[in-house]
Amino acid sequence: MSLTPRQLSAITLGEALTLLAGVPLGRIVFTDHALPAVRPASHVVDEGQIVVRTHDGSPVLAHDTSAVPARGRDEDTVIAYQADSVDVGDRTGWSVVITGTATLVTDPARIARYADTLPPWTAAEGGLIRLRPGIVAGYRLVS
Amino acid sequence: MSLTPRQLSAITLGEALTLLAGVPLGRIVFTDHALPAVRPASHVVDEGQIVVRTHDGSPVLAHDTSAVPARGRDEDTVIAYQADSVDVGDRTGWSVVITGTATLVTDPARIARYADTLPPWTAAEGGLIRLRPGIVAGYRLVS
Repeated sequence: MSLTPRQLSAITLGEALTLLAGVPLGRIVFTDHALPAVRPASHVVDEGQIVVRTHDGSPVLAHDTSAVPARGRDEDTVIAYQADSVDVGDRTGWSVVITGTATLVTDPARIARYADTLPPWTAAEGGLIRLRPGIVAGYRLVS
Repeated sequence: MSLTPRQLSAITLGEALTLLAGVPLGRIVFTDHALPAVRPASHVVDEGQIVVRTHDGSPVLAHDTSAVPARGRDEDTVIAYQADSVDVGDRTGWSVVITGTATLVTDPARIARYADTLPPWTAAEGGLIRLRPGIVAGYRLVS
């Protein structure tokens, strides 16, 4: 394993969405009872937004849940979504974090569409969330 | 790709630390300016605690940073650390989330030790953090 320090090279929003679209898994990051919380999730990039499905039965955004929206319970919730692809041996790869407002997907037509393109992995499905990108941060590890 | 729903099987603290110790990378989850924040990191499990090194130059816990400790600026900060290993084709694997109080590693002897066992990947190293496990949540995806 090389110990040569890597450089961080920032990536743009378009590049971030392209990289994100190329992997099936990420992690949804939110606030739960004022504590930082994170769960693995799967996603698709659709019309410039990120549609995320959680798999562990814990709703991240449901109105009757304990998740505390960062801007008040009646408004959209701010969440972050992170994905990466790293070659540990080579110490190269990328990481992307999208922070933005999220809403539950409630439209039956969209729910049906994502049942095909973004199927749940478990019976304990926690919710289908649409994330509108606000802050996009990403970098590549390059030698 | 099989579409058979998987089951979630909870794992214990000991099992979680063993799984975590078996992978080099995870993600550190914290609160920054009241927003959910996440960064890739590397870690070792040492004496039952998780030692985490960030790689992007943004301090997570430094006292002069913008990170907002969940329990007041002078006390330990609550963070979460997540790692997973998932076979996408098979839809099996595991995910672990450790939530607990974190402190910066400042002892020179420990810093020197972790320089060997947990070397920084980039010149833009953000900090060496010691996480005392509080809440441990983890599951396996099983068929």
